[in-house]
Amino acid sequence: MKKHFEPVGCDVDLATGAMTNATGSYEKRFGDLAGLYGDEAAFQRMRAEWGDKVVYAVSDFRPSDRAGDVIFGVTRMVPGKVGDEFFITRGHIHQQTDRPEIYYGQKGKGLMLMESPEGETRIVEIEPLTCCYVPPYWIHRSVNTGPEELVMLFCYPADSGQDYAIIERSGGMRSRILDDGAGGWKVVENPNWRPRDEAALAAVYASSKKDAA
Amino acid sequence: MKKHFEPVGCDVDLATGAMTNATGSYEKRFGDLAGLYGDEAAFQRMRAEWGDKVVYAVSDFRPSDRAGDVIFGVTRMVPGKVGDEFFITRGHIHQQTDRPEIYYGQKGKGLMLMESPEGETRIVEIEPLTCCYVPPYWIHRSVNTGPEELVMLFCYPADSGQDYAIIERSGGMRSRILDDGAGGWKVVENPNWRPRDEAALAAVYASSKKDAA
Repeated sequence: MKKHFEPVGCDVDLATGAMTNATGSYEKRFGDLAGLYGDEAAFQRMRAEWGDKVVYAVSDFRPSDRAGDVIFGVTRMVPGKVGDEFFITRGHIHQQTDRPEIYYGQKGKGLMLMESPEGETRIVEIEPLTCCYVPPYWIHRSVNTGPEELVMLFCYPADSGQDYAIIERSGGMRSRILDDGAGGWKVVENPNWRPRDEAALAAVYASSKKDAA
Repeated sequence: MKKHFEPVGCDVDLATGAMTNATGSYEKRFGDLAGLYGDEAAFQRMRAEWGDKVVYAVSDFRPSDRAGDVIFGVTRMVPGKVGDEFFITRGHIHQQTDRPEIYYGQKGKGLMLMESPEGETRIVEIEPLTCCYVPPYWIHRSVNTGPEELVMLFCYPADSGQDYAIIERSGGMRSRILDDGAGGWKVVENPNWRPRDEAALAAVYASSKKDAA
């Protein structure tokens, strides 16, 4: 008899972002995010108090890294701002760049900030019960624009991988999400952003495996 | 500039099972499910009153049917029983049999009834915030074991496809889920179930594409 992978039920705890039967988890602390925010002086001022605090945490279930399988999990972000800029995750494009991702809001409010390799920005606001589809090739980062924790489920193809360096190489994402001073958010251009050149774009599109074409 | 698929946010309505920006939807009525339940006489007795009623409905977002992409959506099942047997969905194995599926409970309670090609049964109970992973090769069907609607989100690889006939060919799934008379459920063997022979098993495993190995 063929031996099959065993089915599993994972119970999500919205208060902690933990999930029973998770196969892994990680935490990011404020101090891990040096260089991410536009207002470096504000970041340094916050460091003494915030440096060791967990600002986001992820629990996931990874049955395999096989093409055709899926990975899912929970992400929990604390609320806050560095200067006027709302707390963000590090952000990534998939290493296998043509892989999509789904995010499903469960608590708090925020948005998915997306950037195409060519530098177009897209934003999808996420509240509880919003399911956001991040299509292939979009760099994406979560932003907590609310006063409470932002908790989302996510699901992506198991062979996607994450490439975080693409954002650093461009001097950050092109858009930043700031407090608009009226209870909402606004988009501002990141003056340090550098467009990807032809070679960088070619590398993005070369990293999709042929079997996914 | 490369033209990219546009990101989207879909807002889920737990009361109706609908989703904004869905690309498709379908409904199953009681009368569509002839032959599914163990107690055929009870099914026929209910038909006059229930025949045209929607017993479950699905809304989904299908960006593509490409390997490496994902499809997601919402399923809503009404509560009820045919004789002692709780309402069920038709059930399927993926046409691309090595493709998994995720179900995430959002309202009501129920379970995922799973059967391996060789005839092993597995059950994962689903309540709000339970994320159920249905691994590759498992035939699966949802069962509403509660007194209210069961609403779940789902996500699966976009090239999975659905094969419903595998269940019919075996005389139904091997296990049925009945009311235990004490507020819970119990599993009983389906006497009409026929094991898959060597040729049928070979066909199941032949239907996984080589690119997913």
